[in-house]
Amino acid sequence: MNKDRYSVILGNLGNTCDRFCSSYKDNPETLDMLRQAASIPNVSGIELVGTWDIQPQNVGEMSKVLDDLGLQTVSIIPDLFAEQAYWKGGYTSREAKIRRKAIDYTKRMCDVAGQMECPTVNLWPGQDGYDYLLTADYNAEREWEAEAVREIAEAYPGLRIALEYKPKEPRTHSYMARMADTLLVAGETGCENVGVTIDTGHAFVGGEVVAESIVLATRAGNKLFHMHFNDNFAEWDDDMIVGTVHSVAYIEMLFWLEKCGYDGWLSMDQYPYREDAAGAIGESIQWIVKFNAIQRENRDRIEELLRLGDPVETSRFLRGIL
Amino acid sequence: MNKDRYSVILGNLGNTCDRFCSSYKDNPETLDMLRQAASIPNVSGIELVGTWDIQPQNVGEMSKVLDDLGLQTVSIIPDLFAEQAYWKGGYTSREAKIRRKAIDYTKRMCDVAGQMECPTVNLWPGQDGYDYLLTADYNAEREWEAEAVREIAEAYPGLRIALEYKPKEPRTHSYMARMADTLLVAGETGCENVGVTIDTGHAFVGGEVVAESIVLATRAGNKLFHMHFNDNFAEWDDDMIVGTVHSVAYIEMLFWLEKCGYDGWLSMDQYPYREDAAGAIGESIQWIVKFNAIQRENRDRIEELLRLGDPVETSRFLRGIL
Amino acid sequence: MNKDRYSVILGNLGNTCDRFCSSYKDNPETLDMLRQAASIPNVSGIELVGTWDIQPQNVGEMSKVLDDLGLQTVSIIPDLFAEQAYWKGGYTSREAKIRRKAIDYTKRMCDVAGQMECPTVNLWPGQDGYDYLLTADYNAEREWEAEAVREIAEAYPGLRIALEYKPKEPRTHSYMARMADTLLVAGETGCENVGVTIDTGHAFVGGEVVAESIVLATRAGNKLFHMHFNDNFAEWDDDMIVGTVHSVAYIEMLFWLEKCGYDGWLSMDQYPYREDAAGAIGESIQWIVKFNAIQRENRDRIEELLRLGDPVETSRFLRGIL
Amino acid sequence: MNKDRYSVILGNLGNTCDRFCSSYKDNPETLDMLRQAASIPNVSGIELVGTWDIQPQNVGEMSKVLDDLGLQTVSIIPDLFAEQAYWKGGYTSREAKIRRKAIDYTKRMCDVAGQMECPTVNLWPGQDGYDYLLTADYNAEREWEAEAVREIAEAYPGLRIALEYKPKEPRTHSYMARMADTLLVAGETGCENVGVTIDTGHAFVGGEVVAESIVLATRAGNKLFHMHFNDNFAEWDDDMIVGTVHSVAYIEMLFWLEKCGYDGWLSMDQYPYREDAAGAIGESIQWIVKFNAIQRENRDRIEELLRLGDPVETSRFLRGIL
Repeated sequence: MNKDRYSVILGNLGNTCDRFCSSYKDNPETLDMLRQAASIPNVSGIELVGTWDIQPQNVGEMSKVLDDLGLQTVSIIPDLFAEQAYWKGGYTSREAKIRRKAIDYTKRMCDVAGQMECPTVNLWPGQDGYDYLLTADYNAEREWEAEAVREIAEAYPGLRIALEYKPKEPRTHSYMARMADTLLVAGETGCENVGVTIDTGHAFVGGEVVAESIVLATRAGNKLFHMHFNDNFAEWDDDMIVGTVHSVAYIEMLFWLEKCGYDGWLSMDQYPYREDAAGAIGESIQWIVKFNAIQRENRDRIEELLRLGDPVETSRFLRGIL
Repeated sequence: MNKDRYSVILGNLGNTCDRFCSSYKDNPETLDMLRQAASIPNVSGIELVGTWDIQPQNVGEMSKVLDDLGLQTVSIIPDLFAEQAYWKGGYTSREAKIRRKAIDYTKRMCDVAGQMECPTVNLWPGQDGYDYLLTADYNAEREWEAEAVREIAEAYPGLRIALEYKPKEPRTHSYMARMADTLLVAGETGCENVGVTIDTGHAFVGGEVVAESIVLATRAGNKLFHMHFNDNFAEWDDDMIVGTVHSVAYIEMLFWLEKCGYDGWLSMDQYPYREDAAGAIGESIQWIVKFNAIQRENRDRIEELLRLGDPVETSRFLRGIL
Repeated sequence: MNKDRYSVILGNLGNTCDRFCSSYKDNPETLDMLRQAASIPNVSGIELVGTWDIQPQNVGEMSKVLDDLGLQTVSIIPDLFAEQAYWKGGYTSREAKIRRKAIDYTKRMCDVAGQMECPTVNLWPGQDGYDYLLTADYNAEREWEAEAVREIAEAYPGLRIALEYKPKEPRTHSYMARMADTLLVAGETGCENVGVTIDTGHAFVGGEVVAESIVLATRAGNKLFHMHFNDNFAEWDDDMIVGTVHSVAYIEMLFWLEKCGYDGWLSMDQYPYREDAAGAIGESIQWIVKFNAIQRENRDRIEELLRLGDPVETSRFLRGIL
Repeated sequence: MNKDRYSVILGNLGNTCDRFCSSYKDNPETLDMLRQAASIPNVSGIELVGTWDIQPQNVGEMSKVLDDLGLQTVSIIPDLFAEQAYWKGGYTSREAKIRRKAIDYTKRMCDVAGQMECPTVNLWPGQDGYDYLLTADYNAEREWEAEAVREIAEAYPGLRIALEYKPKEPRTHSYMARMADTLLVAGETGCENVGVTIDTGHAFVGGEVVAESIVLATRAGNKLFHMHFNDNFAEWDDDMIVGTVHSVAYIEMLFWLEKCGYDGWLSMDQYPYREDAAGAIGESIQWIVKFNAIQRENRDRIEELLRLGDPVETSRFLRGIL
């Protein structure tokens, strides 16, 4: 069975800036990045960051290039994080006109998604949060957050609005921090087409067992809309190659993705500062291919282990397959 | 204004066991512990742990002693953590008969609460969770958890069932881990009388800003039922004296408790292994008294700071009051 | 090549107490525990906790039983953690007579080690640390710590004194917290026969890459004296089965153990609260056997990877062996 | 007594880039930044980053400007982190010519320090570390690190070489991660003029109690050379205003700085992304002024508390002063 669909966020193949070094590697042209993405084995989809990769002006041109490369647009990610205007929040800015700007901009990106027949808009409102205690009205700002998402979702009932959570960075605290609080936001909107994106690394930083987060989303009404993959040391969003830190966690989450009926994309989201980008992303995909093969060959055994609840047996099983 | 009501969990004055040392101090008799509790300035309420402090058999006797000491019963905490039978979970045990036992036991404790005119049963199902990956059926066990709470809450509509969350310990992962996921459990029950207890230390370990958790509970329908206070270094449930690690966090949370209309008890939950227990608990209360005075004297200024969102101004304010 | 020597701490097969539940399982008799230890495949050594397992009075008897079971005494671990007298520190107690008691007791255990031809005394002064800020004279207490270790090491030049570090628990902060600070303590003693024990779980909690800690100890003059193995989620000393959370970290550390010439015991230190103890310990050993086989079959390739420093190549290698 | 000397790292007043947003605020000119620094109450010293702020070419010009502004050069911080050439390490690069480049560049900065009568060169080799397991030869790279520092220190015996440690970022693991391991590096060089810089935020992230780290450095031979101040939530180097998260920790560390005879600069190192930079830095200084006044007025009492070791008494004391 090879039903899995793999994709990558285009910017992964370019940007290598951090707060100390403006560029660890020379940045390639967009077309080069697209070609590289298409050259990674198993990749058939691409995620585009609004403004940077895609704007209303280049929809036609981009669509043609993607067609030529055989790449499907998996999601549009509006830029709510790099724009200076959102420095103190986008949807949750104290300034009504900035909130309006963020919403209107997102809607334009929803239009772009529609034009590109892209089913999902992935919202990561990275600047929506706070840095210091006693500086934010959590209630008002959470209200604005929910209102913004509701307005967008109601205006585009044919699109899936996937909320990507992350505990911190660039703010010391994000409003959409973990699966459960993001499900509460989704619930507040009352919109069927609002769901959640799991970035595995964000979940690790949040102290989550990703398989359990998948279950939470499913129990809340099939709210898992999208998956971003990477690995880290569980303290910070290191955006590393899948499988280089965690192993069992991926097997378990892929098992539960299937058990919960997830049929979306498996998308890579990394920051290969000092590595060959296509190589690092390709490795992540090969790890997932491998972990998926393992869990598929052993589904009955895994079901039995879950019924059994005996760590000694689970350990024995893992020793056999790893 | 002295409307605040302070209480303490009775066991705080006794048990000083950890996994290495069975007793750091000699354990006092229950009556001594009660007298000590009553002697702590500002304490007018007590929380009793089921089986250990209170059983159907000693309700009359205990009620009389508490009356004599002028102590009100604030909550009953059924023992779902010390009983060997629940070693692999109570409400979420794989064994149906253990789940039944846990529910029936809890109901008996609800009866006790009713007899003592105690409005709240505080549920901390400490053994409900898992230790190893690939050993638990998260979906089935979460279902059992919600069912158990629903059955109890529906049977006692006059009681408030307060779910106390904690990220880990004694299991490496608890099912009710943080505010948001516990609100999801409460929501699943569909019962008005199910809410949440914040233990400030559990929330710190979970990476929460407690003030924000208070807002989350309020937005979910006034679901904050109870408060347990202690401090820690935010990595483990150290159960220390309030104010010895965090300061600003307490001022902020007391501000938001009031803003959100919380009118429940402020209860102390500590483990004074090597300290004079009554002294350590008394200190926590005096810190809260102090922090509450600060936030009350400065409510307008704090509201202004939240509107302003300027960390420099917040810092200046804090320098003035600390 | 099967030069590896595996051992286990005897108490792992018994004690299952935590601060909430006094016993998750019924405690077996010492003789049963010894028989169980001996029955675990590959186990040929045992570590005994002073007072609990071994005292001057039962040396002869214990030696005979161990002989009969074919078990070698790998280390003696004086009980500096369970004894109420050390509640506020042993070697670092404010009370001179407690410090003296701790030192004299340790010396008696060194005598026992000598009688049992046990080469190593493993010191884990678990109560030496502090809980609250502004309650400890770090300089005086660190001086006492170094003095105590020096006095013991000088009195027993034929024994290896192995200092086991741990960041926290039972104190919120331990004086010997991580590899590097423990090497500083060892250095302060000026004694050749003072070195360090790595407990892999303690190191994970301390944020260490164990392989690097092995290198640190080696660079400081071959100071790695002993190894305790277990696994955890890197936040707390969960004392789990090796390999159930981390994988690559073990391969790397075993590679470096060999590269650094470590020829000591590989000892298991777990807390199988809810698992079959012998089964859980046996699993850890089988994981280490497996990881060791992997690193031994691939030493040249690993050396090349370290020279190369390319995460994509390392990932490719790991995919091939896991 | 107003012997305290306050300084600031010049770049704090400018750069506001992170990996998502290239500039949260418009960058001021160097001269503006200098004027702003000089305008912050209590600031009489400045730290300059090599290449960015100071090069051999502008020593004369910069010296004049600083003279005019009444600012003393406190340290030179060679740029070992922003330069693309050091992307995989400077002193620990696999390429001998890059290591040479890093050393030679540092020496030029030492020359600059000499010309400016600046006593201290602060080395933060941010790129010296590793990201992935099984990609680095910890022994060889640590050897190169020590050799580089030794060569520099021996060439400039009149300068103090202060090693600034940080657990992670920009690498997932730094070679100089915490106080104790950095003291080991300093020890390996065998040079009297090599010591350590504490950045309070780096220490918090490393799980250190800064007061204890000060004691460690002092016990190792008065190795505390320099202090950088900021605050954070102890998980990441948030570079926030002092006192907005921690309070007691600063009082304690200032007490121990004085007790250990520290007479160096108290320098601010922040990243005021969304705040008025001079305001944020000024706040940090005012907090330190306040905390220093508190600990100075209460030295006898604090000494008594350390002798006593009673958290209840310490709590009572803190309630009185905060």
